[in-house]
Amino acid sequence: MNTYKKFTERMQKIADINNSAALLQWDQEVYMPPKSAGRRAQQLSTLAGLAHELFTADDTGHLLDELANADLSEAEKANVSYTKAEYDKYKKVPKEFVEKTSAAVSKAFQSWNNAKQQKNFALYAPDLEALLELKLQECEYLGYEEHPYNAQLDIYEKNMTVDQLEVLFGQVKARLFPFIEKIYHAEQVSDELMYQHFDKDKQWDYGIEILKQIGYDLDAGRQDVSSHPFTTNFSATDVRVTTRIDENNLSEMLWSTIHEGGHALYEQGLKDENYGLPSGAYLTLGMHESQSRLWENNVGRSLNFWQGNFARLQEVFPSQLGKHNANDFFKAMNKVQPSPIRTNADELTYHFHVLIRYEIEKELFEKKLKVADLKDKWNAMYKQYLGLDIKNDAEGVLQDIHWSHGSFGYFPTYSIGSFYAAQFYAQAVQDIPGVEDDIRAKNPAKLLEWLQKNIHQYGRRYKADELCKRVTGEILNFDYFMRYIEEKYASIYDLSGVGV
Amino acid sequence: MNTYKKFTERMQKIADINNSAALLQWDQEVYMPPKSAGRRAQQLSTLAGLAHELFTADDTGHLLDELANADLSEAEKANVSYTKAEYDKYKKVPKEFVEKTSAAVSKAFQSWNNAKQQKNFALYAPDLEALLELKLQECEYLGYEEHPYNAQLDIYEKNMTVDQLEVLFGQVKARLFPFIEKIYHAEQVSDELMYQHFDKDKQWDYGIEILKQIGYDLDAGRQDVSSHPFTTNFSATDVRVTTRIDENNLSEMLWSTIHEGGHALYEQGLKDENYGLPSGAYLTLGMHESQSRLWENNVGRSLNFWQGNFARLQEVFPSQLGKHNANDFFKAMNKVQPSPIRTNADELTYHFHVLIRYEIEKELFEKKLKVADLKDKWNAMYKQYLGLDIKNDAEGVLQDIHWSHGSFGYFPTYSIGSFYAAQFYAQAVQDIPGVEDDIRAKNPAKLLEWLQKNIHQYGRRYKADELCKRVTGEILNFDYFMRYIEEKYASIYDLSGVGV
Repeated sequence: MNTYKKFTERMQKIADINNSAALLQWDQEVYMPPKSAGRRAQQLSTLAGLAHELFTADDTGHLLDELANADLSEAEKANVSYTKAEYDKYKKVPKEFVEKTSAAVSKAFQSWNNAKQQKNFALYAPDLEALLELKLQECEYLGYEEHPYNAQLDIYEKNMTVDQLEVLFGQVKARLFPFIEKIYHAEQVSDELMYQHFDKDKQWDYGIEILKQIGYDLDAGRQDVSSHPFTTNFSATDVRVTTRIDENNLSEMLWSTIHEGGHALYEQGLKDENYGLPSGAYLTLGMHESQSRLWENNVGRSLNFWQGNFARLQEVFPSQLGKHNANDFFKAMNKVQPSPIRTNADELTYHFHVLIRYEIEKELFEKKLKVADLKDKWNAMYKQYLGLDIKNDAEGVLQDIHWSHGSFGYFPTYSIGSFYAAQFYAQAVQDIPGVEDDIRAKNPAKLLEWLQKNIHQYGRRYKADELCKRVTGEILNFDYFMRYIEEKYASIYDLSGVGV
Repeated sequence: MNTYKKFTERMQKIADINNSAALLQWDQEVYMPPKSAGRRAQQLSTLAGLAHELFTADDTGHLLDELANADLSEAEKANVSYTKAEYDKYKKVPKEFVEKTSAAVSKAFQSWNNAKQQKNFALYAPDLEALLELKLQECEYLGYEEHPYNAQLDIYEKNMTVDQLEVLFGQVKARLFPFIEKIYHAEQVSDELMYQHFDKDKQWDYGIEILKQIGYDLDAGRQDVSSHPFTTNFSATDVRVTTRIDENNLSEMLWSTIHEGGHALYEQGLKDENYGLPSGAYLTLGMHESQSRLWENNVGRSLNFWQGNFARLQEVFPSQLGKHNANDFFKAMNKVQPSPIRTNADELTYHFHVLIRYEIEKELFEKKLKVADLKDKWNAMYKQYLGLDIKNDAEGVLQDIHWSHGSFGYFPTYSIGSFYAAQFYAQAVQDIPGVEDDIRAKNPAKLLEWLQKNIHQYGRRYKADELCKRVTGEILNFDYFMRYIEEKYASIYDLSGVGV
């Protein structure tokens, strides 16, 4: 067997273990009976340890060394060099540390769950603190330049740094904040129509219709219900989404479905033949989020999309929506209003939720902020940026699952994704003649094809900056997002006479 | 850390991998999207290889050697010596062989599925033949005395041999066959009441009620739907059952639910503290089946049980069952009639289904029978033992999933389990004052407690023969089964005037 084939087989075995763990996690959130939380945590820890052990084994290093000078295609070379960098990085992390972290994550997750139900941050703080200690330790293993938080950012958004984020969130503060202020001063729109009674089963069926419309392949995936919607995959041929249905709020199901659907299209668009290799894996979480946001916001919250889809939705819910039109619906779904829960936020105030988390995480990793003070800091920042008084911990500092998963440095990718989405969508409209007519005709297949061809198929072949440049001619540029929202929100709010 | 603790940790890690694989298999049968069959097979193969590698590693051997002379409790000694025997046995099987077999199983399973849908055995025969070749090879690795099939039997029913089964099935032929003949000549009973329309959701809910009644803990398990009902577990705290619901046949759901429930009670009755160790695992498949059969047949198909439960069932299905009584229902559920499908068979003709498979498997492993001739052999034996003409392969040789899983030597455990069940139940009635009154009062908790105390808690502490002797004073004795059916069926059929 040649060395590259041996390398591929090893990478596939590691992927098999990681994907098995992903199934255990999926199950944990959708179907697992409560009493088995402890054993499941142990099983996940064992799998995490095994995957780490196999990846960082000397054998893997030898294969990579042999391949460094082998006669390979460009695509093969990219797989090898990406893997080599990861190998050198993770080789420094002891297996025991990986298992310990996995166990700490499971503990923190259970404790977060409990604390959230009890609306009491204090019940969770000690486990979060223990986990944060491990993550700080992890930064040292992984190595970083300038800021320990960079080591965490790099896990989710390779090559992203605090310096770059300061610039990006600087723009959010300088340009998005005043724009939202203008909206606050304009005449408000009503979103009451979303808050009627919508039968659960009908919502479920309609969600499936929408998933099919955007091109999600239900023979290579499935939808289930979970308390926190997510997408996961165990190969490009098994990419699962979950949704959450609120009978008294249609938005919940609708945009979580399109959002997760967008994530899933990316995973289904990876090439199955590259399973286990960098070229078979999503590029960065920001890139992942660009796909979910593009479908959720640029497509799913556009007037255009609903000009095509509203009639069918009225058919499903005639008594609730019969007297409304696509434009009412478009306005309702884009109502801008500060609210305490990130996942329910409109697409503008959303970025302040992210900003708050980013600033908190940065300070935690600078050890300027202690876990014990986290809640007060949170509440103060919600007052500062969104003008809100947080009523209780469940709708405040306990709302997100991420920290309990040990995911610090993850939140910024949500904003990065939105900004990429605007840039990609603008390019797609230029590149694909009539694409918005297609979307209105409920047939966005060409858009999906464009995304597959320009983004999905490459996996980790290029760096995020490089890929963005290949697709749009330039690296991430916040202007696209501003242009997109300025145009869109001018059609929802009368901003002409509003001076700030 | 002391050596026994190291040993326990290693065994738990192996269990973690095996239990992860079990979740992948569960998912494969209940929720997995069709396109991912190939990748899932690969993932299962990787996990099987890893578990095997870890178990048969030299390190494991060293731990076992160290423990051979350590100062241990009797229970600890039993764990070590059981594991040592397995280690010596499986050490001889190469990891590549395990992975190859796992992949061949996945292939055969897919191909069986397809062939069954097409009702065409020929589509599956080549994959089955390839798998059988591997199983024959496995016998050589594992070692055996006298008969290669003994190596397979030993996997499912430790220490069971062809010689013993010849005696057991000799009794089936000599005593059960003539008893069934008598029933065929008696006045027949009607089971028409089972074949009405019973709403799916109501059946589901009633099944859950019954599971709770027998003591199944839904916080440490769950029920789903699959095409072939089964029980699986990933620890004693996560023991899952599946059922199958036929809207036009109440029996399907009812006895599959109680049957799988019985299996699940055994797994939930194992001690979680023994997770990963022989003492934390079911003894043999025959012992497992004794638990499912005891609940299904000795309890669930008794007049006594339905004297307690029929009124509630009538409440759920008033129009279907309002005019019937518990005795009608009891007779209907115990109607004896030869039929082509094993899983639908009554508890008497059932053993001829097993006998046929046993004789076929024995000949396959003696290489007296070829896979190519399997179908003809099957059909001929169904004619011989049950007087039936098999209409097509789906209701004939393709009906069971087992061979596609590479499970040869598994079927006999179904009969062994039924015979154990009769013996255990007879003992329980002697040991527990008023237990049948409790069952009639819908409160069989003492029976479950008795089973937990006498059987479940021990896991693999004793050999099956030893355990049976501890519980009932003697090893497996077919007389108990004959006594049980003679008494029961005399209350259903008038056998007094029937001479054969």
